[in-house]
Amino acid sequence: MQLTSRFRFSAAHRLDAVELTPVQNRELYGKCNNPHGHGHDYVLDVTVEGPPDVSGLVARRAALDTLVREAVIQKLDHRFLNKDVAEFASAVPTTENLATVIRDYLKAAWTLPAKLVRVTIAETDRNTFVWEAGK
Amino acid sequence: MQLTSRFRFSAAHRLDAVELTPVQNRELYGKCNNPHGHGHDYVLDVTVEGPPDVSGLVARRAALDTLVREAVIQKLDHRFLNKDVAEFASAVPTTENLATVIRDYLKAAWTLPAKLVRVTIAETDRNTFVWEAGK
Amino acid sequence: MQLTSRFRFSAAHRLDAVELTPVQNRELYGKCNNPHGHGHDYVLDVTVEGPPDVSGLVARRAALDTLVREAVIQKLDHRFLNKDVAEFASAVPTTENLATVIRDYLKAAWTLPAKLVRVTIAETDRNTFVWEAGK
Amino acid sequence: MQLTSRFRFSAAHRLDAVELTPVQNRELYGKCNNPHGHGHDYVLDVTVEGPPDVSGLVARRAALDTLVREAVIQKLDHRFLNKDVAEFASAVPTTENLATVIRDYLKAAWTLPAKLVRVTIAETDRNTFVWEAGK
Amino acid sequence: MQLTSRFRFSAAHRLDAVELTPVQNRELYGKCNNPHGHGHDYVLDVTVEGPPDVSGLVARRAALDTLVREAVIQKLDHRFLNKDVAEFASAVPTTENLATVIRDYLKAAWTLPAKLVRVTIAETDRNTFVWEAGK
Amino acid sequence: MQLTSRFRFSAAHRLDAVELTPVQNRELYGKCNNPHGHGHDYVLDVTVEGPPDVSGLVARRAALDTLVREAVIQKLDHRFLNKDVAEFASAVPTTENLATVIRDYLKAAWTLPAKLVRVTIAETDRNTFVWEAGK
Repeated sequence: MQLTSRFRFSAAHRLDAVELTPVQNRELYGKCNNPHGHGHDYVLDVTVEGPPDVSGLVARRAALDTLVREAVIQKLDHRFLNKDVAEFASAVPTTENLATVIRDYLKAAWTLPAKLVRVTIAETDRNTFVWEAGK
Repeated sequence: MQLTSRFRFSAAHRLDAVELTPVQNRELYGKCNNPHGHGHDYVLDVTVEGPPDVSGLVARRAALDTLVREAVIQKLDHRFLNKDVAEFASAVPTTENLATVIRDYLKAAWTLPAKLVRVTIAETDRNTFVWEAGK
Repeated sequence: MQLTSRFRFSAAHRLDAVELTPVQNRELYGKCNNPHGHGHDYVLDVTVEGPPDVSGLVARRAALDTLVREAVIQKLDHRFLNKDVAEFASAVPTTENLATVIRDYLKAAWTLPAKLVRVTIAETDRNTFVWEAGK
Repeated sequence: MQLTSRFRFSAAHRLDAVELTPVQNRELYGKCNNPHGHGHDYVLDVTVEGPPDVSGLVARRAALDTLVREAVIQKLDHRFLNKDVAEFASAVPTTENLATVIRDYLKAAWTLPAKLVRVTIAETDRNTFVWEAGK
Repeated sequence: MQLTSRFRFSAAHRLDAVELTPVQNRELYGKCNNPHGHGHDYVLDVTVEGPPDVSGLVARRAALDTLVREAVIQKLDHRFLNKDVAEFASAVPTTENLATVIRDYLKAAWTLPAKLVRVTIAETDRNTFVWEAGK
Repeated sequence: MQLTSRFRFSAAHRLDAVELTPVQNRELYGKCNNPHGHGHDYVLDVTVEGPPDVSGLVARRAALDTLVREAVIQKLDHRFLNKDVAEFASAVPTTENLATVIRDYLKAAWTLPAKLVRVTIAETDRNTFVWEAGK
């Protein structure tokens, strides 16, 4: 049995790789390379897996909520990712890299009996990214 | 090829485990333990799998609809789960347990050539539960 | 300028008018008259109107949120409307009457400079109810 | 890491198998067999998989968009599938068969380093179809 | 108090005005002028207004549903509007004209005490059309 | 008859009024005052009104789309509002002020026979702002 719990946060970012020239960055990232950045209302789905225990729960919802809010949302919500989040000092804050960072935040903080099996993050209503355990 | 068909039903429930004390129930289930219960507009997705036959269909939509309505929706829609549904006389009607009951209802009534592979149920727009065959 | 802020709550209810016979209630309310009740994930939109002040705001979001949560959500969320909410001891908890009760709760608690102009409440994804000031 | 990108197109179709009699077609496809056809706003999700490269991307979004628009959307959007799309001269344009045709269009045009792993297409808000690689 | 009830239907159409030349039609309607037509999953919202009666209802939901299904949905659902619906023998089935036809269907069949005040129809997730009484 | 057409853009902003002290700004705008800004996927609905002409249209969709894209989207999409948009050099980029700026952009560029009657902008799925003509 899997439980997916949804969270939302709003952040700004700019896509610009230090390894590339300005022309290459512009060509690769298009308007996402605009100098001052832009932002999104990210939708984050965290999926856990395990058998329901005697109380009929895969995970205590309050515990899961607190963990995700403290480990992820408080660090990213209403931030400029490139400037406020240490992980994006060296990595470009694409949503792919953002999914990886969120997975690492969650793994480092994980204390629930249920297994973390998937992190899904939508940047807009047109683009969604998934990290899945064991893939 | 998989086909997922969506259904909706509205039901009331209260989360309260007989094995636990009132204080433990309150601590575990929070406001879901409120004495008179509350309710949800559940969204149910039933997924079947198989090769499209010569008519280009994985399953006859009318047959699938009738099966799910008779085996599931008529038993749960506009009910108070704890009081109206026999399975929840002994089990707490968490959405995890509800997903298991729906899977069992479907398996018992299944007559389609396509395989039942997944049952997904959303309790609110923030929490979704999945049972998947073979997992 | 109008600002609409969205809230959600989950509640149970049963439609049954004391003035009517059981047969009339059944005929009028259909499955909403089932004896033990059922429930919904209500979506509530509160709309306020006024000119943006010097800070560019029609209403301070935090103040509006606190007001709606204390005046409405805490009274209705995770409740059985007929049993837990005094107003529905005498009135049938249709969504029409629920909209009226919410409007009265909001008016009684209102302290914001912006005007309360509309209360919208969706019972399911198919039925939405609106009270509008001056109509 | 998987990236799912969403596209939309509007098309008409009629379900009618040449192998079946008019009575059989009517019984099998119901109102989808109405003689002049009807239509849908299809929602197409294309999922690709691969490791993010040094620029933090699973796939260059502009390249993926161009590929899907040229290989799929331009052929199907604002068309009557039975009359305008060669593949449906011989096959019934069920959404199952449509998913297969789209997968074939994509495979034939595929030039991206990331792997095409899933094609999801929703015909209405109630029915969704999935083709997945290796299943 | 207003109640809005949602319905869905799927239809095909082609935009082509007899008063215009082929070149003018192509220029005006673009790909909506493609010769064989295309289709949509229309979303129809019917809004009625009146005071809740003693039973707490603006309108009996079952009566409203039956009226809309018989007066509108059965005539338009799974049809090719230009070929199957008499009103579009002479008028172009734009969504504007479709809203007018639906309003006329509803007015002709109207038997409810509540007033019909608005007809809203979405052609896609990007374009919505509204007729409002007295405007 | 009204037609509402939907557009989307992604932008960053920071809420900070020059008339206020840092402490006052923090108290008023909360985390929206974070120093480096954050961002949103804004959803913009532009509503026009008029009688359908002989071609059955309230407005030529292509003309409306081009006007909104050139007058609004190109100026705001993938921008940091405070830094890239002249109007927000002096005004705080609240969504209220953003709605006013968009209305002014549209009015200055308006060339359509149909009247511009409403601008609706959602900042997140919880907060929506409306400017309406003549109110």
